[in-house]
Amino acid sequence: MGLLESISEPADLRRLDPSQLESLCAEIRRFLVSSVARTGGHLGPNLGVVELTVALHRVFESPEDVLLFDTGHQSYVHKLLTGRRAGFERLRQKGGLSGYPSRAESPHDVIENSHASTSLSYADGLAKAFQLQGRTDRHVVAVIGDGALTGGMAWEAMNNIATGDRPVVIVVNDNERSYAPTIGGMARHLATLRTTSGYERFLDWGKGVLHRTPVVGPPIFETLHGMKKGIKDIVAPQGLFEDLGLKYVGPVDGHDLPALEHALRQAKSYGGPVIVHAITRKGHGYEPAERDEADLFHAVGVIDPETGEPLAASGTSWTSVFADEMVAIGAARDDVVGITAAMCIPVGLDRFGKAFPDRVFDVGIAEQHAVTSAAGMATAGLHPVVAVYATFLNRAFDQVLLDVALHRCGVTFVLDRAGITGDDGASHNGMWDLAFLQVVPTLRIAAPRDAETLRAELREAVAVSDAPTVVRFPKGRVPAVIPAVGRAGGGDVLRREGEEDVLVVSVGAMAELALELADRLTAQGIGVTVVDPRWVKPVDPALVPLAARHDLVVTVEDGIRTGGVGGAVAQALRDAGVRTPLRDFGVPAAFLDHARPAEVKAEIGLTAQEISRQVVEAVARLAAPTEPSALS
Amino acid sequence: MGLLESISEPADLRRLDPSQLESLCAEIRRFLVSSVARTGGHLGPNLGVVELTVALHRVFESPEDVLLFDTGHQSYVHKLLTGRRAGFERLRQKGGLSGYPSRAESPHDVIENSHASTSLSYADGLAKAFQLQGRTDRHVVAVIGDGALTGGMAWEAMNNIATGDRPVVIVVNDNERSYAPTIGGMARHLATLRTTSGYERFLDWGKGVLHRTPVVGPPIFETLHGMKKGIKDIVAPQGLFEDLGLKYVGPVDGHDLPALEHALRQAKSYGGPVIVHAITRKGHGYEPAERDEADLFHAVGVIDPETGEPLAASGTSWTSVFADEMVAIGAARDDVVGITAAMCIPVGLDRFGKAFPDRVFDVGIAEQHAVTSAAGMATAGLHPVVAVYATFLNRAFDQVLLDVALHRCGVTFVLDRAGITGDDGASHNGMWDLAFLQVVPTLRIAAPRDAETLRAELREAVAVSDAPTVVRFPKGRVPAVIPAVGRAGGGDVLRREGEEDVLVVSVGAMAELALELADRLTAQGIGVTVVDPRWVKPVDPALVPLAARHDLVVTVEDGIRTGGVGGAVAQALRDAGVRTPLRDFGVPAAFLDHARPAEVKAEIGLTAQEISRQVVEAVARLAAPTEPSALS
Repeated sequence: MGLLESISEPADLRRLDPSQLESLCAEIRRFLVSSVARTGGHLGPNLGVVELTVALHRVFESPEDVLLFDTGHQSYVHKLLTGRRAGFERLRQKGGLSGYPSRAESPHDVIENSHASTSLSYADGLAKAFQLQGRTDRHVVAVIGDGALTGGMAWEAMNNIATGDRPVVIVVNDNERSYAPTIGGMARHLATLRTTSGYERFLDWGKGVLHRTPVVGPPIFETLHGMKKGIKDIVAPQGLFEDLGLKYVGPVDGHDLPALEHALRQAKSYGGPVIVHAITRKGHGYEPAERDEADLFHAVGVIDPETGEPLAASGTSWTSVFADEMVAIGAARDDVVGITAAMCIPVGLDRFGKAFPDRVFDVGIAEQHAVTSAAGMATAGLHPVVAVYATFLNRAFDQVLLDVALHRCGVTFVLDRAGITGDDGASHNGMWDLAFLQVVPTLRIAAPRDAETLRAELREAVAVSDAPTVVRFPKGRVPAVIPAVGRAGGGDVLRREGEEDVLVVSVGAMAELALELADRLTAQGIGVTVVDPRWVKPVDPALVPLAARHDLVVTVEDGIRTGGVGGAVAQALRDAGVRTPLRDFGVPAAFLDHARPAEVKAEIGLTAQEISRQVVEAVARLAAPTEPSALS
Repeated sequence: MGLLESISEPADLRRLDPSQLESLCAEIRRFLVSSVARTGGHLGPNLGVVELTVALHRVFESPEDVLLFDTGHQSYVHKLLTGRRAGFERLRQKGGLSGYPSRAESPHDVIENSHASTSLSYADGLAKAFQLQGRTDRHVVAVIGDGALTGGMAWEAMNNIATGDRPVVIVVNDNERSYAPTIGGMARHLATLRTTSGYERFLDWGKGVLHRTPVVGPPIFETLHGMKKGIKDIVAPQGLFEDLGLKYVGPVDGHDLPALEHALRQAKSYGGPVIVHAITRKGHGYEPAERDEADLFHAVGVIDPETGEPLAASGTSWTSVFADEMVAIGAARDDVVGITAAMCIPVGLDRFGKAFPDRVFDVGIAEQHAVTSAAGMATAGLHPVVAVYATFLNRAFDQVLLDVALHRCGVTFVLDRAGITGDDGASHNGMWDLAFLQVVPTLRIAAPRDAETLRAELREAVAVSDAPTVVRFPKGRVPAVIPAVGRAGGGDVLRREGEEDVLVVSVGAMAELALELADRLTAQGIGVTVVDPRWVKPVDPALVPLAARHDLVVTVEDGIRTGGVGGAVAQALRDAGVRTPLRDFGVPAAFLDHARPAEVKAEIGLTAQEISRQVVEAVARLAAPTEPSALS
């Protein structure tokens, strides 16, 4: 691995000759495959951008020029070329290299979010700032996938970038696999053409290639059409638009390094906003990934298609239980439809889609549209189930609040990967939903604790026709059954042991932790009742007298404490005049660095051990004669 | 007014002959002007869509066909034609006609939200549902302004609608005033052409007209370009796109009824997704509005450009204090820039823009881009001030959380119209920000109580360079100074009287209410301390010992109680082991019907009278010997 070892910064790249560069790219691929296979991570996307990243770093001078990677999971090659090769041994591990750009790691990393479609807005802001600072020599380059262009904020940004005269280079990393087989040498020739006619010729040629629409899920053919028309429209220098100054370069073969460099140099020299359209192939150069039709090599690992974690190998996943129950519900009710934002397989709607192909809608990476089009369907009498990762529902807060809840639409939101997801870092943890959704009037939230309650609560959710409901659960293995020993209002009593000293209110998948907590408390002679309210919003009125009978209420949730379920229970008790003290345990109000979920939970004290320690202390304080307020 | 009186439902319209229709339109205009002048309301937009609405109701059969009005303030004519003429006497008043579509009023109203850019997503959902139900005979018609097309979710929807074969008619109500003077008769001729070439010819002709860019604010010329290119691209049946089936009809003169009907009938008969491009003129037919360059007739009233309320007439507005202070800050610091989402004048950034034309950026109705482009600017060393209405920041929750806060960007958000705005109904109240922003780590929130603290807190906000800040204030008149009598931590003590019985924590503009509350309590012999913490997030640690010394803590805020400032204070007290009971007063978790702000506040109990009644009761209960929990 001689060449790769010789690259410690981008300047080193610029000294290599063409044959060395070719060898370097091959080396990078071998390194990625062997390294990521050991650690897990996003393999396919990075194999696809080897040449593109090398070309970017040869043509532009980071960090003076700013390179932005939209979404960010395709930044491994960038990391390799900016001195971080050694870090790959601990990729995505606690204290190790992040799976996304990270400003703490390198001055070459500028944005580190992993929600899609943001890079063009950052680029517009950076370019506007550089212009005000008299630094229009600094280029801003955003690398954005064709998928991320379906997100509305990318369009908002495009609309703004196009009106400026700033040196923004938008590199569209078009890796739709249906392009790959035939693009080859023709692309380089096409890349030399920058006129409408050249583009048109490419499109005519591409027409035949494009006519393969997948059976289920996203209208990929149409989405590509959409993308293409967007780009063509904005950049093609024709008619009224030529004075806008947003030029188009491409399409260029994203695995042809000289062609890429040529295109990027053209874009750089232009000086205004310009699009470079690169056709790349996910998994390029690694045969198992190239053969892979289901995109399993997007992130490697045996089972989990999103993270590469071998989680489902040791049992049934929450996602899988949801997937099967949706099919059963769909068989019984033809008004139930599924909506996904470009994640049909990861959220488990693929099975529903296979069973009911007319009734699943993939809208692209477009959560806002997913939610409001669901409101439209509900208005017409359907019951849509919108399945997304918990963290991505943030993108549609206003739509859930006004378009769905204000309009009293019966829409079910299924939030997968709720709670601590860990490895993907701060932006992927599903730690916000329980708190920000509290403010949505009429919305109800179910947090199932096992496979059985997931099935039951999903059915309860789709039975609601005049308000939104949420069913949220974590990633990973689901316990089959955690039995109830009694009922409390609409919830289940999971344990009742000893005196009514401590009432533990357990939120969803926290049940296992709550039961371990109960074991630890009873071992110390403290009486415990553990309740799973099943529906955590609104607060079950039955909790109020139950809390009043206990000496201490403890709430445990895997969401941010601020304004979460614990806060809502506390408010309900205040409103009722119940003065039983309450301790709310959850995720602190902070952004959490990447690490395995168990490591993150240990770090933030979300373990039975740490909570029991604090509860025992609190119980001891309650028994003490002094008033706590006197201590202040 | 014989003709208008004869119209009680859309079917009545279809019986009129051309000359009657012309008279009817004139009657409607006279009615709007005289009626809205009495009640206040959105005048300009409705004068602009008289013919368009008449044509829509003649060509389509509502409610079987579904008419959706994006944003909704242009639905007055629709209301007149669907049997609600009498209601205009109490337009926007408590219990009277809503200023937006309202499902409670009529089966002809389907969506009633007033945040922009949602109608196309609803339309896509409705059309998908109708198709599944075998009802493709039901047309879905969305009327959307050119401004609302700058919002990302409109693009997300367009991308989805274009891939379908469902009868969705998108009526682009293009009312950009620079079009108006010359469009006249030529448009009708152009409307008969549905081909690319026809459209191109129109654009060539329009080129000259368009070359008038306003001095400050939105790049209207460029925005129109953006809009046009978007539409043209998606609809023009050319090249690769013709098989998509999204057709374009227009442009058509939006004040030529026969031309409009012709275009709409063409669109209706087509059967698939189609755009009708209507050129209308805000205020058409009412000379003062047509002459009005500053769009003051968008909503009538003497001073307030958004609502028509004569608020500022009786004193200085919060907006005005912000506007002037921004100019002062801008003079001292050339790194401070302003960003607005299509509301430069209403939020008061116009003065800053006049003083520093290079340093104000209007991004269109695109809150997501506003926020993330601000993050980009901050990354480059600027300090952006993003000024929006409080309710519209909902649209950018994820961007505030991840793109700004996670990235430790120094961005100031100025939220105008926070609290109860009343007249515009549920969606316009700024009652969400204090709660949902609580979950954003590192973000700080200032709530000034008067002009002096607004100026001071804005300066404190723009001094923060490594985290986001929010400065939020209501609409209307600002008190010049509400003096402090002491300090408590970082906050001000506004009153200290008698024993330390009740601690009132007053949030921002609630100070006047809090002082009246104090008067009422002291009149009953209850000692009161009133504190304005100035910064309400994070909770000032000084509040904890202060609370511990009192018998009862009362928080008063004009945001939703759930997870609001009161909840945060309660959490801080719990965490510190302080057991002083707390009563949190704020807006209930419900959608609030339109009425004057004072009426809404009275209805929800957010008055000194009602709060004092409850506090007196609570104090009495505290003095009583029985434990409240025994009552449960």
